[in-house]
Amino acid sequence: MNYEFPITKTTNPKQKPDPKGLRFGTEFTDHMFVMDYNPEDGWNNGRIVPYGPIELDPAAVVLHYGQEMFEGLKAYKTPEGRVQLFRPYMNAQRTNNTNDRLCIPTIDEELFVAAIKALVKLDQDWIPEGEGTALYIRPFIFADEPFLGVRRSTTYKFMIILSPVGPYFESGLAPTKMYVEDVYVRAVKGGTGEAKCGGNYGASLKAQEIAHEKGYEQILWLDGIEKKYIEEIGAANAFFVIGDEVVTSELNGSILPGITRNSIIALCKKKGIKVSERKISIDELEEAYRAGQLKEMFASGTAAIVSPVGELLYKGERMIINDNQIGPVAQEMYDTIYGIQTGKIEDFMDWTVAVE
Amino acid sequence: MNYEFPITKTTNPKQKPDPKGLRFGTEFTDHMFVMDYNPEDGWNNGRIVPYGPIELDPAAVVLHYGQEMFEGLKAYKTPEGRVQLFRPYMNAQRTNNTNDRLCIPTIDEELFVAAIKALVKLDQDWIPEGEGTALYIRPFIFADEPFLGVRRSTTYKFMIILSPVGPYFESGLAPTKMYVEDVYVRAVKGGTGEAKCGGNYGASLKAQEIAHEKGYEQILWLDGIEKKYIEEIGAANAFFVIGDEVVTSELNGSILPGITRNSIIALCKKKGIKVSERKISIDELEEAYRAGQLKEMFASGTAAIVSPVGELLYKGERMIINDNQIGPVAQEMYDTIYGIQTGKIEDFMDWTVAVE
Repeated sequence: MNYEFPITKTTNPKQKPDPKGLRFGTEFTDHMFVMDYNPEDGWNNGRIVPYGPIELDPAAVVLHYGQEMFEGLKAYKTPEGRVQLFRPYMNAQRTNNTNDRLCIPTIDEELFVAAIKALVKLDQDWIPEGEGTALYIRPFIFADEPFLGVRRSTTYKFMIILSPVGPYFESGLAPTKMYVEDVYVRAVKGGTGEAKCGGNYGASLKAQEIAHEKGYEQILWLDGIEKKYIEEIGAANAFFVIGDEVVTSELNGSILPGITRNSIIALCKKKGIKVSERKISIDELEEAYRAGQLKEMFASGTAAIVSPVGELLYKGERMIINDNQIGPVAQEMYDTIYGIQTGKIEDFMDWTVAVE
Repeated sequence: MNYEFPITKTTNPKQKPDPKGLRFGTEFTDHMFVMDYNPEDGWNNGRIVPYGPIELDPAAVVLHYGQEMFEGLKAYKTPEGRVQLFRPYMNAQRTNNTNDRLCIPTIDEELFVAAIKALVKLDQDWIPEGEGTALYIRPFIFADEPFLGVRRSTTYKFMIILSPVGPYFESGLAPTKMYVEDVYVRAVKGGTGEAKCGGNYGASLKAQEIAHEKGYEQILWLDGIEKKYIEEIGAANAFFVIGDEVVTSELNGSILPGITRNSIIALCKKKGIKVSERKISIDELEEAYRAGQLKEMFASGTAAIVSPVGELLYKGERMIINDNQIGPVAQEMYDTIYGIQTGKIEDFMDWTVAVE
């Protein structure tokens, strides 16, 4: 099926930011994609318009009951000038999984990807060039019916905005210090941990701020039931290299099925690196550390791709990992994924999707 | 301290709805309260303006990360024409507890109540008269900084809107059928269950819809760890009468500290009715039911005040409570609280606050 969306071009294009000083998620391109949902027409009126404020009734469901979801992916320009996306169908599928959990109507996956392509094509001059940069793509859906009862909204908006970004962490690939959180909980089985919905993120801010106050950049979340098993790192998936095994927590209903997580597992398999998805307890980590077997630890996510952890604090014990340096597995995963994304390495995994 | 807010009156007043056909949360009055927050000025520019759409940047934090909270309370007109609120300082205090959990700046409690009073005073002609009606007051706060990184917003809006409402459940005080949820979880200790934030409500829709499909109006939530202890009913607190004891689940970090809950406990004590806040397991309920000791079950909340439960389904077993009739404790609590709220019973608890 061929999707075409009407385009209203801006009459007032913005100045593009200096690619050198780019931060994450503070500047937006000239246009945005908007589509409406109502029960009669379903998803309808997909269109590209100039980036700008939207109007919302103050009783809109999203402002009260958090019926909202988002996705994140990136567009890159290859050395040959080709514009490409990284695994956008994974985002489309996850969108519908999240929508199902949040009682939001599902979206045709081809339409989802077509909308991203159309918007990125129009604003492709905004794709920054330079190490660690990309055009961040933020699809999101929110409930906009003006109604205060607690039930699913009958109307929604699906939007896509674009932001030229530098590295998510200003420190880039420098290892971060991490605090093991044992009071606050990110998610529990039966909750929304595996969905990419707003509530998960608002709920996580408090623990993150406490970690910052203690001098730690991120938090390692434990499971909400036994406070024993590793779940995630901040808003990213957690990876460990224990001995010669790369380990990440198995998807258990409370962990987000990260696309970078999936890519790292697939890459390890392709490269013959031993990789496991399984339960991993904080006690196992401590034991491995004491035995000199905790070789690496890193977070994975779309924003930073890979972010090494150099120090872990758990109940007063400081573990220094890989001498506070990025390890070989984290480095290889970052180099390979970012290389494929930017077209500097051949896409031997068939992960990229061309825009036009 | 005396708070005054500039008022911009509507030039286009709406027609007031027929009090007979009133539903919950679908119609709004002529005006709304708005106040801004930024780091330099703190909360500032509190004002009353005509009710209408607000403008939001599509990157506003609330649309992505659910950094938002709300409250709910009601205004009534007494037979003498006096306008009064029910325990508004409880809402002010709970607002600040929620704000602390969601990393939202706290609000002066006197200002919070003064803003409600000013708005209700202006729109007092919208207070409906008639059994079961009230003017529902919805204070809410959301993060509006346009920024896609995961950290607390630097700017916020605090708003209040008003809605003339009929009974929350169309069935009024008729007993509802309830489904014990044992797959989905509302909240877990360390999460946001005791905060009144949007994410809790969006997350609850799925289980509610499954219950509806099975023919049940509401869900009884069990704890997220052992799936054993009663937490809440839908978006309300849970009460039981077991033998001669009124029981509600103790506040444990994952249960919302309801103001109606608090009022029922206080009323029971005042009236010499035995009342306990303690853990109560679904097994205890079943045993009490089989022994003929489960006399009553009801939900409590601002919207419905009291909502009796006539049937409970747990793992295939149907329990019929009090012959599917409202019981004497639920009826007395409803009559007394609604009587005090509407000024038809003397306020012997000192709960009402006059508007002017």
